[in-house]
Amino acid sequence: MSNDSLLRALAREPTSHTPVWLMRQAGRYLPEYNATRARAGSFLALAKSPAFATEVTLQPLERFALDAAILFSDILTVPDAMGLGLYFAQGEGPRFERPLRDEAAIRALAAPDPSDRLRYVLDAVREIRKALAGRVPLIGFSGSPFTLACYMVEGSGSDDWRALKTMLYARPELLHRILEVNARAVTDYLNAQIEAGVQVVMIFDTWGGQLNHADYEEFSLAYSRRVIAALTRESGGRRVPSILFTKGGGVWLEAIAASGCDAVGVDWTVDLAAARARVGARVALQGNLDPAALFAPPERVRAHVRRVLDAFGSAPGHIFNLGHGIAPTTPVESVAALVDEVRAYSAKLRAKAQTKT
Amino acid sequence: MSNDSLLRALAREPTSHTPVWLMRQAGRYLPEYNATRARAGSFLALAKSPAFATEVTLQPLERFALDAAILFSDILTVPDAMGLGLYFAQGEGPRFERPLRDEAAIRALAAPDPSDRLRYVLDAVREIRKALAGRVPLIGFSGSPFTLACYMVEGSGSDDWRALKTMLYARPELLHRILEVNARAVTDYLNAQIEAGVQVVMIFDTWGGQLNHADYEEFSLAYSRRVIAALTRESGGRRVPSILFTKGGGVWLEAIAASGCDAVGVDWTVDLAAARARVGARVALQGNLDPAALFAPPERVRAHVRRVLDAFGSAPGHIFNLGHGIAPTTPVESVAALVDEVRAYSAKLRAKAQTKT
Repeated sequence: MSNDSLLRALAREPTSHTPVWLMRQAGRYLPEYNATRARAGSFLALAKSPAFATEVTLQPLERFALDAAILFSDILTVPDAMGLGLYFAQGEGPRFERPLRDEAAIRALAAPDPSDRLRYVLDAVREIRKALAGRVPLIGFSGSPFTLACYMVEGSGSDDWRALKTMLYARPELLHRILEVNARAVTDYLNAQIEAGVQVVMIFDTWGGQLNHADYEEFSLAYSRRVIAALTRESGGRRVPSILFTKGGGVWLEAIAASGCDAVGVDWTVDLAAARARVGARVALQGNLDPAALFAPPERVRAHVRRVLDAFGSAPGHIFNLGHGIAPTTPVESVAALVDEVRAYSAKLRAKAQTKT
Repeated sequence: MSNDSLLRALAREPTSHTPVWLMRQAGRYLPEYNATRARAGSFLALAKSPAFATEVTLQPLERFALDAAILFSDILTVPDAMGLGLYFAQGEGPRFERPLRDEAAIRALAAPDPSDRLRYVLDAVREIRKALAGRVPLIGFSGSPFTLACYMVEGSGSDDWRALKTMLYARPELLHRILEVNARAVTDYLNAQIEAGVQVVMIFDTWGGQLNHADYEEFSLAYSRRVIAALTRESGGRRVPSILFTKGGGVWLEAIAASGCDAVGVDWTVDLAAARARVGARVALQGNLDPAALFAPPERVRAHVRRVLDAFGSAPGHIFNLGHGIAPTTPVESVAALVDEVRAYSAKLRAKAQTKT
């Protein structure tokens, strides 16, 4: 691999600069992405076509010196493959045609065979790996068992997750049944992605931060931990590291770091210096610039990037990222400034640290 | 005062039971509230009429054994008095007719004289105190300088606060100018409420938790601290305690506890046992049941209440509350079960602790 800085940072080994990639780096802020999406006809047609998915996965790498590619897909492919009917209404987030609202539907739920109904994802992984030709590692991903359950029960995103939480508080055994199926499904799905060629896996727990601290352990972290424990450890003679990201999970950092993952993704509410002090070198940390900082002029963006890099310092084990996905209205020049500054400033930080020692 | 358990808990003095009140305890889940609101014609007409505000403030006390009344009002009365034009569109949250988008409007911003354009609030306070006749203390409140600024700049609630954050990241000096005016305005407003008769004040920092950790200190906590430092300390020979609530502020608990407030409000992501260990007896803690737990059947609600009480334990300094306002669709019988269980179970906890010692 020409650039394995991400893998080395995930292993807490020294790198010449802080590796950087961005959640939703392939997306609507890029004019070339919008052009491909228009040709595909819709977001789902794009995500379900290995050729289009490969095209958009590589687009940001052509523009910016990123240290990783991430599979272009949706976090909700698994429940879609379970038959819930994923769709996107105009200008809205994801929705399911058949959300899980009654006991019979929950009892009937089964983990899908990834080589069957999720074959399009695995085909995309193989095609992207070929197109990358070893430039940078490819990250595969899934929603966490809990975050999948949020959408499966609610039927869509929500401000208060009333349907989901009513089930959690009133019929917890039903939610546990969904989560058990999801944990098996996510494990099989991520292992199939690894077999197809992804070199890192990431679990997105977008909504775990909505839970009560005890319920976060019981309904979210316990199931992510189960997935991580059952992941294929090595592929092609190299360890396949895992990243667990819980939006709003800063208060539970120690517990997340003890989940078995190699890296913890953190949002911008977390001070990286304090986070490092809390978890030590047990895991790498990924994050954590507020995506809204990209609405500032490029020079300010660079200053905000430096603040994040300074907080972590020059020790190994930091992967620069945002604390959430890039907003569709983000100026492309802000992203260019970000990536450039991470490379330049982090290399300088390391040089300074070496001079001192 | 017949029941001063709230004031004693705020002073970390022993009480026979854990005092309980609920954010939005006067609100749409109560049929009698909806009847009054229908008579008033609109939410704003209700909030701006001292007679109606008094009526709805007292309604939950007739039904439940609550240990405090909270002034019925809106968190955005201050910017409304600054001339921004608060209104509520059908089925939506608050909006401003004239949000702060240009420098001229920001330079022209001034703190309103509470005895002039906010007199209706002070009249309501006086009328409520009379109607309460010393049963329980009356809590006054305001949005925090930062949370007011969120709505003032954005013009409404938001998922990503893009306008606000663009100003914060690109033109921080403009946001600081707004926050300075807001801090003065909130101080004057809360001191006027104290003079009119409120016995506790609470600052709602609903959106501080959206900020980067360093920006939370700079743009939110610094201004709340300034307000707290300038509050009238005593009224009628009794200390007027303050409560600072930052939704999503769990990671910053130590800093919030050091702000000068008497109590910190915490949401349900925080483990009260861990929170107590972090801040000690320096402040009281208020919270922290997830309002969605009230969608469970009454027996489950009672179990969830006990879990919160057990987490804090029987030491002085806990005020039971939700981690956010009651949802309008909450069943009244759930609220009844909650209040009853807090009283009964917390009294039992104390008795058990005394037997042990």
